[in-house]
Amino acid sequence: MEFYFYSLIAGIVSLLFSFGFAYMVLRKPEGTKKMQDVSNAIREGSKGYLSRQLKVIAVFAAVLALLFLLLDNGWQISIAFIVGAVASYLTAYLGMNVAVRANIRTAKSAEAGASKAFSTAIYGGAATGFAAVGLSLIGISLLLSYLPVSGVIILIGFGFGASVVSLFARVGGGIYTKAADVGADLVGKTELNLPEDDPRNPAVVADLVGDNVGDCAGMAADVFESYSVTIIASLLIAAGLAATLTAFKYPLYLAGAGVVSSLVSMLFMRTKGKNMVRALYKGIGAAVAIAAALDLALTLYMGLPIGYFVAVLSGLALAIALFWITDNFTGSGRKQVIKVAEAARGGAGTNVIMGLSVGLKSTWPSVVAVVLAIFISFAAAGLYGIGIAAVGMLSLAATILTIDSFGPITDNAGGIAEMGGMPKKVRDTIEPLDALGNTTKATTKGFAIGGAALSATALFVAFAQAVGLATLDALSPFVTIGIFIGALLPFIFSSFLMEAVGHAANLMVDEVRRQVKSIKGLLSGKAKPDYARAVDIATVNAIKALVVPELIAILTPIAIGLVLGKAALGGLLVGMIPTSFVMALFMSNAGATMDNAKKYIESGKLGGKGSETHKAAVVGDTLGDPLKDTAGPALDSMIKVVSTISILLAPVFMAFVLL
Amino acid sequence: MEFYFYSLIAGIVSLLFSFGFAYMVLRKPEGTKKMQDVSNAIREGSKGYLSRQLKVIAVFAAVLALLFLLLDNGWQISIAFIVGAVASYLTAYLGMNVAVRANIRTAKSAEAGASKAFSTAIYGGAATGFAAVGLSLIGISLLLSYLPVSGVIILIGFGFGASVVSLFARVGGGIYTKAADVGADLVGKTELNLPEDDPRNPAVVADLVGDNVGDCAGMAADVFESYSVTIIASLLIAAGLAATLTAFKYPLYLAGAGVVSSLVSMLFMRTKGKNMVRALYKGIGAAVAIAAALDLALTLYMGLPIGYFVAVLSGLALAIALFWITDNFTGSGRKQVIKVAEAARGGAGTNVIMGLSVGLKSTWPSVVAVVLAIFISFAAAGLYGIGIAAVGMLSLAATILTIDSFGPITDNAGGIAEMGGMPKKVRDTIEPLDALGNTTKATTKGFAIGGAALSATALFVAFAQAVGLATLDALSPFVTIGIFIGALLPFIFSSFLMEAVGHAANLMVDEVRRQVKSIKGLLSGKAKPDYARAVDIATVNAIKALVVPELIAILTPIAIGLVLGKAALGGLLVGMIPTSFVMALFMSNAGATMDNAKKYIESGKLGGKGSETHKAAVVGDTLGDPLKDTAGPALDSMIKVVSTISILLAPVFMAFVLL
Repeated sequence: MEFYFYSLIAGIVSLLFSFGFAYMVLRKPEGTKKMQDVSNAIREGSKGYLSRQLKVIAVFAAVLALLFLLLDNGWQISIAFIVGAVASYLTAYLGMNVAVRANIRTAKSAEAGASKAFSTAIYGGAATGFAAVGLSLIGISLLLSYLPVSGVIILIGFGFGASVVSLFARVGGGIYTKAADVGADLVGKTELNLPEDDPRNPAVVADLVGDNVGDCAGMAADVFESYSVTIIASLLIAAGLAATLTAFKYPLYLAGAGVVSSLVSMLFMRTKGKNMVRALYKGIGAAVAIAAALDLALTLYMGLPIGYFVAVLSGLALAIALFWITDNFTGSGRKQVIKVAEAARGGAGTNVIMGLSVGLKSTWPSVVAVVLAIFISFAAAGLYGIGIAAVGMLSLAATILTIDSFGPITDNAGGIAEMGGMPKKVRDTIEPLDALGNTTKATTKGFAIGGAALSATALFVAFAQAVGLATLDALSPFVTIGIFIGALLPFIFSSFLMEAVGHAANLMVDEVRRQVKSIKGLLSGKAKPDYARAVDIATVNAIKALVVPELIAILTPIAIGLVLGKAALGGLLVGMIPTSFVMALFMSNAGATMDNAKKYIESGKLGGKGSETHKAAVVGDTLGDPLKDTAGPALDSMIKVVSTISILLAPVFMAFVLL
Repeated sequence: MEFYFYSLIAGIVSLLFSFGFAYMVLRKPEGTKKMQDVSNAIREGSKGYLSRQLKVIAVFAAVLALLFLLLDNGWQISIAFIVGAVASYLTAYLGMNVAVRANIRTAKSAEAGASKAFSTAIYGGAATGFAAVGLSLIGISLLLSYLPVSGVIILIGFGFGASVVSLFARVGGGIYTKAADVGADLVGKTELNLPEDDPRNPAVVADLVGDNVGDCAGMAADVFESYSVTIIASLLIAAGLAATLTAFKYPLYLAGAGVVSSLVSMLFMRTKGKNMVRALYKGIGAAVAIAAALDLALTLYMGLPIGYFVAVLSGLALAIALFWITDNFTGSGRKQVIKVAEAARGGAGTNVIMGLSVGLKSTWPSVVAVVLAIFISFAAAGLYGIGIAAVGMLSLAATILTIDSFGPITDNAGGIAEMGGMPKKVRDTIEPLDALGNTTKATTKGFAIGGAALSATALFVAFAQAVGLATLDALSPFVTIGIFIGALLPFIFSSFLMEAVGHAANLMVDEVRRQVKSIKGLLSGKAKPDYARAVDIATVNAIKALVVPELIAILTPIAIGLVLGKAALGGLLVGMIPTSFVMALFMSNAGATMDNAKKYIESGKLGGKGSETHKAAVVGDTLGDPLKDTAGPALDSMIKVVSTISILLAPVFMAFVLL
C-alpha cells in the first residue's frame, strides 16, 4: 500500500460526510414565502459577490500559473498550484452554499425548539468543516501519487495556490462584511435607532451577505490553507532531514486520525436547548481527547519515538489553550470586557483607548502558549517536532471549522427570523444561538491565528532547508534589513484593509442616508428599501480593494529575495511571522472585547441601550469590526502567502541575486 | 591631550550656552499678576509632580545601584549608573524649570509682536537642548577620564542610568499629560462647549502642567538618553572591533562638531513674525549643513577613510528624511490628514478606522529610510559605520530638542494668555506660534523614533560583541522564542500605558463633572474651579502607573537571558527593535494625523467647529492623544532600557544559564 493511500481514504470519507451533513440540512423545511424572499436575497448577493471575486482570482491565478512554467518542474508546479487554488475555492464555495441554505432552515427549525435549530446550524457548519479537510487530503494525496518522494517540494505549489485564494477570500470577504456591517450600524442603529436586522435598514441584506462571504467563505479558505500548508511543511521538513518513509507517513496518518476524532466529536455536539456552549466545548474536548488517544496509538504502532507523540500533544494542547485564553480575555462578561464597557462612561474616546489597551495586553498569554509549544515540540522531536506539532493542532480543523461556521449561520438565521416576520417566541429561541455564534467566532479566531503562527514557523524551517541555509545570522546587516521589512509588512498590509473598510463604510453610510431621505415611507415600513444597491456598493468596493494587498504580499518577498538574497529573505520571514502573529492577536482581541463591551451595556448594564455610554461603546464596536474581522484574520493568510512563495521560488533566489 | 578632552570642552561650552539661553529668557518681563497666578499654578504643579516622580526614581535607582555591586567592577558600574541617572534627571529638571518660566515670558513678549515671542520660546527650548547635550558629554568624558580604554564597557552603566530615568520620565510624563488633556477635552470641550484653555475648566491647569512634565521633561530625558547611548554604543563597537584610539576619538569629535553646528544654527532661527516655520527649517538645514562640513573636515584631518564620512552623512540625511516624511504624512492640510477628516463625516467610528489606517501606512517610508541608512553606513564602514551613522544623526540633538521644547512653551503661553485675560490681539499673535509648536512636536517625534531605532541597532551590535556572539542563528529555536517574546514586548508594554491614560482620564472626567455640578457659579465664571484637585488626580495616577512598565522592560531581558541564555536574549533584541520601531511610528503618526484632522475641521472645513463631523473628529483626537504622546514615545525609551540592561549584564548571562 502506498503511504498516501490512507490519507486519500480519510479525505474521501471526510468529503462524503460533508455531503451527508449538507443533505441533513437540505432535507429540513425552508419556512414561509417571506422568509424565503429574504433568504433568496442573501443567497443571490453572496453568489454574486463570489462570482465576481472568482473572476479576479482566475485572472490572477492564470498569470501566476503561466509564470511558474518558467521554473524547473514548471508543469508540475503549475498543476499543483491550480489544484490547490481550485480546491481552496471549492471549499469556500461549498461552505457558503450550504450556509446560505442552512440559515433559513435553522430559523425554521427554531419553531420546534432550540435543540433542533442548534443541530441544523451545526450540520451546516460541519458540511464546511469536513469539506475543507476532505478536499485538502484528497488534493495532497493525489499529487503525492504522481510525485516521487524527492519531488515533495512541488507540493508547495498546492500550498501557494491555497494561500492565494485564501488571501483573496479573507481580504475581499473581510472588507465586504465589515463595510456592510459598519455602514448598517452607523446609520441604522446610531442615527435612526433601528434594531439589528431591521428590514427598514437598506444595508441589512448586505450585512447578512457579508456574514457568508466573510465569516463563512473567508474562514473556510483560511483554515483549508492552514491545514494544507501545515501538512506540506511537515512533509518538506521530513524531506529536508532526509528522513525515512515513516516520517512522511506520520503527518498524513495524524491527519487521518484527526478526521476520525472530528467525526466522533460530532456525536457530542448535542443539546436539549440548555447549555449550548457546553455542548460545543464537549465536542472540542472529545475531539482533542480522541485525537490524542489515536495519535498515541499511531506513534506506538508505527514504532516511532514517544517524543514524536509529545510534540503532537503540545500542538493539541495549544489548541485548547488558545480557546481558553481567547475566551477569558474577550468572552462576554469577562473582567477585561467590563473594564472596556466602564471606560465608555467617559465617552467614545476613553472607550476606544481602553479597548485597544486590552487588545494589546491580551496578546501575551497566546504568545507564551505558542512559544511553549515551539519549545516543547522542538525539545521532544527537533525541527520535525515543530512540524508535527502544527499538524497535531490543525488535525482538529474539521471540528473547529464546524463550530466557527455555526456563527454566520445562526447570525443569518436571526436576521431571516426578524425580517421574515417570525413570531417573537421563535426569535427569542434564536437569540441565544446567535450570541453563542458570536462567541465561537471569536474563540475560533484564536485557533486560526495560533495555527497560522505555528504553521508559518514550520514553513520557515522548510524555507531554510529549501534555500540551503544551515544558519541564518541575525547579525548580518542584510538579515537585519530583512527583519525590519518583515516587521513592517503586517502594518502596511493591514492599513490597506482598514482603509478599504473605512472608505466603503462611508459610501454605505451615504447610501443609507440617501435612501432614508429619498424613499418615502421607508421608515414607517410602507416602502421597501433598495437592498440591491447597498449590496452592490459592498461588492464593488471589496473587489476594488483586492489586488493591492495581494500584490504586496507576493511581490515583497520576491523583491527582497532577488535584490538582497536568500538570507535577507529569511530575515524577512523572521521579522514578519512573530510581528504579524502578535498584531493579529491584538486586532482580533481588541475587536472582540469592544464588541462584547457594547453587548454588556446592551444587556442593561451601565445605563443600557440608548444611553450615552452605549453610544460611546458603539464607536468602539465600529472600530473593532474591521480590526477583528478584516485586518486581523487577513494577516493569517498574508504570512502564509509570503512563506509559501519564498519556498516556491527558492531555486530562483539561490541562482540569482542582485547585490 | 587625552582623547576625551575635546568632548569635555564641547560639553562645558554647551552647558554654558544653555545657561546663557536660560538667562536671556529670565531677564524678560513676567506679565501681569493674573498671568503670574496662572504661571505659578503651572510651576507648582510641575514641580510637585517631578518631586514625587523623583522619589520613585530614587528608590528604584538605589536598589539597582546596590544590585550592580554584585557584578565584576561593581563599584565602577554603580557609579556610572548613578552619574547617568543624575545627569538625565538634571536635564529634565533644568529643561522643565526653564520652560515653566519661558511660557509666561513668551506670552508677555507677544505684546511686542510675534518675532519677540518666537525668540523667547526658542531660547527657552535651547536652554533644554544644550543642557542635554552638555550634561551628556561632560558625564561621558569625565567617566572616560577615570576608565581605561578596555573598561569602556562600564560606560553602559551611564547609558542604563539615563535609560531608566528616561523611561520613568516618558511613562510618567506621558500618562500625566494625556490623562489631563483627554479629561479636560472630554468634558470641557465636548460636553460643556468651552474653548481650549478656558479658566472655567477645572482640568485646564493640569493640562498645562502636563505639557511641561510630558512634552518637555519627558522628551528632554529621552533625547539625552538617545544621545548618550548612541555615543556609548559607537565607543563599544570600536572597542569590540579592537580598533585604534582614533576610532574612539571619532564619535566624540563628531559630537563636538554637533555642538558647534547646533550653536551656529541658532543664528538662523529668527523671524520677523512671518513664515516662522521657515525659520525653524532654516535652522535645521543650517545645523545639518554645518555638521556635514565639519564632519567631512574632521574625517579628512584625522586621516580616516572617506567611508566613515559617508556613514555619518547617511545619519544626517536620515534626520532630514524623517522630518520630511513625518511632515508629509501628518502635517496639517496634508492629503492623508484630509482623508481622515473626511472619514469623520460617517461618524467617530469611520474616523478612527481611517486614522489608524493612515498611521499603519505611514510607517513604510520611515522604515525604508532607516533601512537605507543601515545599508549605506554598513556598506561604507562596516558595523562601526552603523554606530557612527547614529552618532551623526544624534549630533543634531541640541537643535532638535530646541525646536521640540518650543512646543510646550508656546502651548503654555497660549494657555496663560487665555487664562490671564490678555487682550484678543495678543492671543491672536500667540495662536500661530502654538500651532507651529504642535507641528514641531510631531515632526521631531519622527527624529526621536528613528534615532532610537538606529541607536538600538548600534546597541544590538555592541551587545553581540559583549556576549561574544560571532553569529546569531535565527534558525535556532531558542532564538526563535526570543524573537517572539521580543515582538510581544512593545504590545504588552504600551497596553499598560494606554490603560493608565484611559483610567486616569476617566477619573478626570468624573472630577470635572463633579466640580461643574457642585461648585455654583463655575460655568458663569463667578466661582473658580478647584484646579489643584485635578492636578492631584493626574499626579497620583501617573505615579501609580510608573513601576510596572519599568519592571517589564528590565525584568524581561534578565529572565530570558538567565533562563534561555544569551542567544535567546539576542533573539529578543532582534524581535523587539524593529517591531517597537514600527509600532512607535504607527502610534505617533496615527495620533498626529487624527489631531490635525480635527484641526482641519476646526479651521472651518467640512462643517467646522461644533458640527457632528467635528465631534466625530474629537473622538479620533482623543484616541490619538495617548498613542502619540504616551505609548509611542515611551517605546523609544523601552527599547534602549532593554538593550542597555542586556549589555550591562552580559557577563552574567555568559557565566550562568538555566536551560
